[in-house]
Amino acid sequence: MSAVVKQQRSASEAPPVTQMLADFVASHASRGWSDAVEAEAHRTFMNWVGCAIGPSQHDSVATTLGAVMELSPAPQASLLGRAEKVDISNAALINGISSHTFDFDDTHLRTIIHPAGPVAPAALALAEHIGSSGRNLIDALVLGIEVSCRVGNAMYPDHYLRGWHITGSTGMLGSAAACSRLLKLDADRTAMAIGIAASQPIGVREQFGTMTKPFHPGGAAKAGLMAALMARHGFTASPRALEAPRGLMPIVSDKTDYAEITERLGQTWEVSLNTYKPFACGIVIHPSIDGCVQLRNAHGLKAEMIRRVVLRVHPLVLELTGKKTPSKGLEGKFSVYHSCAAGIIHGRAGEEEYSDAVVTSADVVALRSRVEAVIDTKVPEDAADVSIETTDGRTLHVYVEHAIGSLARPMTDAQLRAKFVDQSAPVLGAERAARAADIAARIADFPTVKELIASCTIGR
Amino acid sequence: MSAVVKQQRSASEAPPVTQMLADFVASHASRGWSDAVEAEAHRTFMNWVGCAIGPSQHDSVATTLGAVMELSPAPQASLLGRAEKVDISNAALINGISSHTFDFDDTHLRTIIHPAGPVAPAALALAEHIGSSGRNLIDALVLGIEVSCRVGNAMYPDHYLRGWHITGSTGMLGSAAACSRLLKLDADRTAMAIGIAASQPIGVREQFGTMTKPFHPGGAAKAGLMAALMARHGFTASPRALEAPRGLMPIVSDKTDYAEITERLGQTWEVSLNTYKPFACGIVIHPSIDGCVQLRNAHGLKAEMIRRVVLRVHPLVLELTGKKTPSKGLEGKFSVYHSCAAGIIHGRAGEEEYSDAVVTSADVVALRSRVEAVIDTKVPEDAADVSIETTDGRTLHVYVEHAIGSLARPMTDAQLRAKFVDQSAPVLGAERAARAADIAARIADFPTVKELIASCTIGR
Repeated sequence: MSAVVKQQRSASEAPPVTQMLADFVASHASRGWSDAVEAEAHRTFMNWVGCAIGPSQHDSVATTLGAVMELSPAPQASLLGRAEKVDISNAALINGISSHTFDFDDTHLRTIIHPAGPVAPAALALAEHIGSSGRNLIDALVLGIEVSCRVGNAMYPDHYLRGWHITGSTGMLGSAAACSRLLKLDADRTAMAIGIAASQPIGVREQFGTMTKPFHPGGAAKAGLMAALMARHGFTASPRALEAPRGLMPIVSDKTDYAEITERLGQTWEVSLNTYKPFACGIVIHPSIDGCVQLRNAHGLKAEMIRRVVLRVHPLVLELTGKKTPSKGLEGKFSVYHSCAAGIIHGRAGEEEYSDAVVTSADVVALRSRVEAVIDTKVPEDAADVSIETTDGRTLHVYVEHAIGSLARPMTDAQLRAKFVDQSAPVLGAERAARAADIAARIADFPTVKELIASCTIGR
Repeated sequence: MSAVVKQQRSASEAPPVTQMLADFVASHASRGWSDAVEAEAHRTFMNWVGCAIGPSQHDSVATTLGAVMELSPAPQASLLGRAEKVDISNAALINGISSHTFDFDDTHLRTIIHPAGPVAPAALALAEHIGSSGRNLIDALVLGIEVSCRVGNAMYPDHYLRGWHITGSTGMLGSAAACSRLLKLDADRTAMAIGIAASQPIGVREQFGTMTKPFHPGGAAKAGLMAALMARHGFTASPRALEAPRGLMPIVSDKTDYAEITERLGQTWEVSLNTYKPFACGIVIHPSIDGCVQLRNAHGLKAEMIRRVVLRVHPLVLELTGKKTPSKGLEGKFSVYHSCAAGIIHGRAGEEEYSDAVVTSADVVALRSRVEAVIDTKVPEDAADVSIETTDGRTLHVYVEHAIGSLARPMTDAQLRAKFVDQSAPVLGAERAARAADIAARIADFPTVKELIASCTIGR
């Protein structure tokens, strides 16, 4: 049986998931979930806003904005961390790009989807423009994330292994769903919106390391928003655009486990499985940094008190982040040595600790030369064994079973707030950053998103 | 060897086609091809303009315009056949949608790509806005079509069989290339534009029969235009976005014959292989209609002179277009009986002959009941054996070896012009339609596209 025939046979037996998802998005009750899910949705939203503000002056944003300004866009929706307003479709694009630029946003670990990236910027731009309540915004966010992560669950890992950047190649569905909800489209028009979006998977993994990587969630946000607007006006698509033999899913994945979409839909919530990065680098070195910061804080360590640091780590750590002597900020992200040294000296590893200045600073360079990493196949990927020998002869030790930020050891609300302020204070100023954090953390209580936008933008 | 490993191994040996195409687009001489190629480029352009004007009042256009107007777009570029102007990215979208709405546009038979659909609307919108010459517009069109059709050649048929609507899933590359050329980007920025576009393949075949089918070329046009604008401002992508192991081509096709891209690049021209439909229906029934119209014209036939029509046809004709008694315009496109009856009565089978009115008109209904179709496995797919028995006892016969509009029997310039006027006169009025045809047919001689736009729009 040829691959194409197999694809078509299995797809012809698929349940009508496009319509099922549309029915769900159009009809599920507002705040129709537990307090825990509601809280996680707010953590997801707050983390995303901070991650969009942090890189708001970055080249990835500035160059896209340059292109968008060539369209003379109407000032409909705000760019987070900036003064400009652009049309809603391009606000979704740019805020989406910004939020993934530092790769510091949220992660749905089961699929490696960054769930908020394509959904939140589209929903926020639309909410600002049409005057949606915070409640409706959070509803749209939860439902949109449910759609993209369930489609992701059905296709992961094959879809990702084939080379798709799954955040952008499922995210346009979540964006279309969220925007349909905010526009109060009925189930049939929502199915059209999801259907139009299904023709626009965005993102191939070859782009990693270029600005087009963060373009993927931004592009998906824009595509989904436009799909919802088109559906609102009566544009049509196949109501089986996801699951038909020549629909999206069989085309982009050999694995299409539709039960991942249909089972317990509306009862379990993918947003509750969301995680947030405490450190602005690949997740594989988080346990090592975590251990170093723990020992630093517990023992009041300073660089000059340290004779050497010995990390026992999973083989992947050195494979991916074994760079001994990084000379630029970005290279620092691929160096467990730099990351641990910076963590000990600065007590954190945010985007600033991956600046050129910190990566080349004398104190960090000196300490990183005293960091050793040893492969230990008995150490799992999300663990690390960290020993620090002090100049006065002590050996301090911690075994990190699950790094901070993992599902087993989530960041606390206070830590998430600190991450938000760390990223946004340099852009907004400390006072506004604090106010923005307060509002984002309980956005569902606000009648509109106006106050949030006012606190997250500058120069008005 | 797993499929993924195989994909990565073959891709790692790929030549640097992204950069090669970019170098070609940025540096190939203006009008660096034969007179025949130049003439075919103009035929492609004129045919496309007519196909975009014809459906300009259709729901697919009106609904998209409704969505776009929600963005309060700046009036930068015109919509063909209409009075409105919108921003260049959405003018590319809407004119692209319009041009494929009746499925009456051009066909690159080797790949079933509709080459102009994603390239021409992006290039025209940009040319109007930045004041490009007609010469530069035609250069951009030829080069853009070369890029998408060569990438299509490299992946066809696997890519299409898998379910991709190849027009939209290669078209964004052609659009990015054409717009890069118009913007005079250097080779490196052109590579970035093609790279950004490579993350945005648009279109799955499940959408056939819905408005999302014509969305595919329109969406591709818009994506490519935005990619070029972003590249102009310094946005980055992988310079191996097409051919790297996790680049576009290995991800969306098992067949990646890179020689189709590299060999004789700049020496042979895919636009010279373009064809144009004389009839507004699936190509499989074109030989039958052609035969009927030939006999009609040769013998001055009228419906009442005909006792019966006997078609001997390839099996696919009845499989795809065997509908005996269509009751709506669209169903008429799937009826060889209606198509031949309308062809005999009206002497043509344009979009009007597939209106509800003509499909249900008494004369056509009466004649179609006297049309018989017989499967003959000896008749090739692009041929038809047509006999007409007259009421006065004659049997008229023609064997159509290659239908009009095929590569072997291309439409003449006069026929293409008539097709243009047929489509555009109802929208523009006869005088303007004639003027538009004159200008489109020699657009490279015009210092700007202003006169063309003035003749192709209304209500100004």
